[in-house]
Amino acid sequence: MTGMQPGEGWHLIADLTDGAHLDDADRIARILTDAAAAAGATLLEVRLHKFGAGFGVTGVALLAESHISIHTWPEFGTACVDIFMCGQTNDLDAALAVILAGLGATVGRQATHRRAFGKAPASVG
Amino acid sequence: MTGMQPGEGWHLIADLTDGAHLDDADRIARILTDAAAAAGATLLEVRLHKFGAGFGVTGVALLAESHISIHTWPEFGTACVDIFMCGQTNDLDAALAVILAGLGATVGRQATHRRAFGKAPASVG
Repeated sequence: MTGMQPGEGWHLIADLTDGAHLDDADRIARILTDAAAAAGATLLEVRLHKFGAGFGVTGVALLAESHISIHTWPEFGTACVDIFMCGQTNDLDAALAVILAGLGATVGRQATHRRAFGKAPASVG
Repeated sequence: MTGMQPGEGWHLIADLTDGAHLDDADRIARILTDAAAAAGATLLEVRLHKFGAGFGVTGVALLAESHISIHTWPEFGTACVDIFMCGQTNDLDAALAVILAGLGATVGRQATHRRAFGKAPASVG
């Protein structure tokens, strides 16, 4: 990704479809761990909650560089993923690729935001 | 917020400036808890990491309806907040108001995304 200013980060938003393993909390924990590594991020911890047999998972990988979150709906084959990293060199696309491969999913909607944290946002936009 | 379709949620992205208490993990944990309640969401847990004296906090409130995340930079008075809820009746603006009040912060940049989880995104857009 290009165009980053000092004091900015990138936030990739992806709503996934046609996914599998979306009720498998252990697998999703591994995917989040691998996605953080693929992005070159430092993992603080992974926290997951499972909503019962056959239902989805909500979880987050907290990073030194912000977070990766995932919420899954196995009944629809869908998941909502956020990959937000304040590091200048993190590869968010690599993290998303790990998640897509791990779930066998495709991207339905995707967007990327610049996030401002370094100075008053008006001065870095 | 209006215009929600079945199988969609809202995701509010806000980059805050001019905030205080941004290194106070206990205060931020209470703010996240209060923000979830203000939105009418069900809190699963709050997880916070502090990066050392005078440095920022990274944290998340995991919700039955998705999550609220926060990353703070006390050295700049800034914070990046996400409020994502898949519920049809959650009040994201109320959650943001609690966070702004608790940190004495103002919004530098704000955006709202529809998130698709109910069916293949192309069918609900």
